[in-house]
Amino acid sequence: MTVFLVGAGPGSTDLLTVKAHRLISSAQVVVHDRLVSDEIMALIPADAERIDVGKRAGGSHTQALINELLVTLGRDHQHVVRLKGGDPFVFGRGGEEAEALINAGVSFEIVPGISSAFSVPAIAGIPVTHRRIARAVTVVTGHCEDPNESVDWSAHAKTGATLVVLMGTANLPKISTDLLNAGMTPSTPVAIIHNGTRADQTISRLTLAEAHLADAQAPSIIVIGETAGLDLRDPNTVHDLITTAR
Amino acid sequence: MTVFLVGAGPGSTDLLTVKAHRLISSAQVVVHDRLVSDEIMALIPADAERIDVGKRAGGSHTQALINELLVTLGRDHQHVVRLKGGDPFVFGRGGEEAEALINAGVSFEIVPGISSAFSVPAIAGIPVTHRRIARAVTVVTGHCEDPNESVDWSAHAKTGATLVVLMGTANLPKISTDLLNAGMTPSTPVAIIHNGTRADQTISRLTLAEAHLADAQAPSIIVIGETAGLDLRDPNTVHDLITTAR
Repeated sequence: MTVFLVGAGPGSTDLLTVKAHRLISSAQVVVHDRLVSDEIMALIPADAERIDVGKRAGGSHTQALINELLVTLGRDHQHVVRLKGGDPFVFGRGGEEAEALINAGVSFEIVPGISSAFSVPAIAGIPVTHRRIARAVTVVTGHCEDPNESVDWSAHAKTGATLVVLMGTANLPKISTDLLNAGMTPSTPVAIIHNGTRADQTISRLTLAEAHLADAQAPSIIVIGETAGLDLRDPNTVHDLITTAR
Repeated sequence: MTVFLVGAGPGSTDLLTVKAHRLISSAQVVVHDRLVSDEIMALIPADAERIDVGKRAGGSHTQALINELLVTLGRDHQHVVRLKGGDPFVFGRGGEEAEALINAGVSFEIVPGISSAFSVPAIAGIPVTHRRIARAVTVVTGHCEDPNESVDWSAHAKTGATLVVLMGTANLPKISTDLLNAGMTPSTPVAIIHNGTRADQTISRLTLAEAHLADAQAPSIIVIGETAGLDLRDPNTVHDLITTAR
């Protein structure tokens, strides 16, 4: 009886880890999120049980119920896969599920996945770090469920790190205003990558001063910082930005 | 003629992506770093050319020479793999190599890898984000090659993000002192993970106030922040930390 907390990466089966591919293809039960792609879902054996706990607005599966479900399944089955988009420990709430399992004495294993925070910009031609341009990258949530939680955007404005904002489309006007008020340069490049790594991905490029006007649709990943102006698929932007930075 | 800039992940073949596994197993030429594991190197076909460009202290392969080599190989071969530990765009200097290739008109493709910055803490039981504990994670280099570059540790001390410091063992006394001087709490947990994900991994746990005394050996990944006090393999630390945070 082991529950595997598995990262499904950004969506393509090619970007699953070898271990995730093997575990999914031989699972007895798969508990999955809404964000896991059809291509990856198709790897699950036909006779395996699939449980969709995708949280929608007003959805019925709270995190507490998901935790309880994993404990029950972990006690009853040899090989349970808990499948999450991206990486289970990077805003995947894998930590909370691991806690519930450990406290119930159910054995589990973490299988890291390719984080969308780094791979989505990469496939869009944006390296989140670059020597001389960004010596740090911060991955931050743009959406806090609990009103007592918050992100100190003015502190983040001062680090020089590339900011990769997940779940930030709805709050982008507030986030960009807070960053500007904290002194971040209005011409700072911003890239909004919608449906990243997929065939229908779109990339909007603008400046921080323009970001409050952007019509950002979920799911998108927002990159803010000098590296967001790079497109390593286009020789012109490469030349311009790198020359400026030197 | 395509050069694939491939992330090798933290070391195990199980944590390669499906795509990386396929590309490595069918490469004609592999240009690799010193940090790529023996287990992954063993996947390279016996008749493929292997070029070690691992940079050691005083090593002969500068980044400019590596860039030139990739351009030359990319023009002469169908299928060149440039293999890097972790992810090519997260302090992997993949951005600089991509620039050189694009400027020379050589086609290339980025294949993201599992970043050690997230996977090494995960395998050690540390989730780099956790609801109520850390709503952001910053990955930062602890070693700047160019004296004109620097990291503003006092700005990073104020964001509340979990800090994951790569290549920081030599500078840990300075880094921890800068963070303390900027007001970070002396009791902030620090975890130093040496040889992460490997069978011989070791984890030292201490506080920020004690960090200057640590005997940190390279290669290590240093995690600084409340989540560094978690060990999701041990029910006691889980209970203590989560209870405190609520």
